[in-house]
Amino acid sequence: MRVARISFRGKTFYAVREEESFRLLSSFPEKDFVFTGEEVDLTEARLLSPSVPSKIVALGLNYKDHARELGLPLPQEPLIFLKPPSAVIGPEEEIILPPESKRVDYEAELAVVIGKRARRVPPEKALDYVLGYTCFNDVTARDLQKKDGQWTRAKSFDTFAPFGPWIETDLEPFNLKVRSYLNGKICQDSSTAELIFSVPEIISFISHVMTLEPGDVIATGTPPGIGPLSPGDTIEIEVEGIGRLRNFAASS
Amino acid sequence: MRVARISFRGKTFYAVREEESFRLLSSFPEKDFVFTGEEVDLTEARLLSPSVPSKIVALGLNYKDHARELGLPLPQEPLIFLKPPSAVIGPEEEIILPPESKRVDYEAELAVVIGKRARRVPPEKALDYVLGYTCFNDVTARDLQKKDGQWTRAKSFDTFAPFGPWIETDLEPFNLKVRSYLNGKICQDSSTAELIFSVPEIISFISHVMTLEPGDVIATGTPPGIGPLSPGDTIEIEVEGIGRLRNFAASS
Repeated sequence: MRVARISFRGKTFYAVREEESFRLLSSFPEKDFVFTGEEVDLTEARLLSPSVPSKIVALGLNYKDHARELGLPLPQEPLIFLKPPSAVIGPEEEIILPPESKRVDYEAELAVVIGKRARRVPPEKALDYVLGYTCFNDVTARDLQKKDGQWTRAKSFDTFAPFGPWIETDLEPFNLKVRSYLNGKICQDSSTAELIFSVPEIISFISHVMTLEPGDVIATGTPPGIGPLSPGDTIEIEVEGIGRLRNFAASS
Repeated sequence: MRVARISFRGKTFYAVREEESFRLLSSFPEKDFVFTGEEVDLTEARLLSPSVPSKIVALGLNYKDHARELGLPLPQEPLIFLKPPSAVIGPEEEIILPPESKRVDYEAELAVVIGKRARRVPPEKALDYVLGYTCFNDVTARDLQKKDGQWTRAKSFDTFAPFGPWIETDLEPFNLKVRSYLNGKICQDSSTAELIFSVPEIISFISHVMTLEPGDVIATGTPPGIGPLSPGDTIEIEVEGIGRLRNFAASS
């Protein structure tokens, strides 16, 4: 199923996207899918970020092909950082390039959306805590990332965490193409088969540090081919089996 | 006024702490203080973390005396990082020392609690967005901080963000004693007069990166004298004009 969050006539709903309509849900499908019985035509609703995370945990270097390209040894443990909820935007929204940075990059990623509270779960049970998967753009002010050392400022500007278009619940995360397209031209083209730490390993690792809550998002790292955004650019993140997340870069 | 969040008969309320009672508020006092008219005896309620932040933004090196001690030059800009909401605990709760770390330190800090949404505010208007101030313990797994380079894991374990006991609204943040006591013995003893970046400068800087929401917490950095916690320790953070935040270290 494709779980979406939509704006319809000024109100916000969780819904399952069908071929021609959204079937409204009573709430975020933490345990069960409870349908209200109402349907909304696809053309009448606007997609929002498909969850409202209490936190977004993201990974540094996590693609073997990226490590090879950079000539870096493979890390022994996942390297994690946080992006704030205030950075979230949904599909078709603008990524605002802030005046504080001279270089803002796109980063295509597979994201995990947590379905139930997870605390110190072993890798072999980690997928039980997943609602599904979505596309994520880990937008990064590259110059500030280098200047600060700590990545927080570079990763945290408002609009720097686009994700969507929906959460695909019927998907195995182990061999999915991950791509980005800048103004229609392919820039990143890899597969989650290249992940250094697999999705279950990542969830387990993070859950040993912090309790993961329903709706929380884990961005699993980006493959080679990242590059800068300019005002007016269209940037699309595609993950096989999910779809495409499209956003537009704009000056502030 | 002292704004608290309390647990009373299984329910949670915001309240103003008076000499002998809590006067219940209808909600977090974002704009106005709306009292319900009910009062609860101090002895009948338990203090919780005084806000429920959507994010916690904290500062690295921000005390002149600490920089002098470490022989470091003063930073040109604030260095920020995030702690997740899942790390929050209130007064009198246990700080759990995780098996992943061999050294977990206390760090006494003055924290700012945001009262209304702040986005790109100038320093001279920054204090208009503050509800008040509280005590914060930026608990840190020192070994993991060094190992990872990025500070997120070291700062993000569950229970690593104690703050409270309440939010003092009638306070100027420019010359307040900041102290910690380990098992009753003073360990840190400085003043916010030693801050490299003042509270208005910090709020302005962060609000130019990310929109600050009511209830969000900013931890303003720690003075010299930090040290490790052992199971059974009592750690208290005191800020002049606010009071003391007390927590207990425990093994997992």
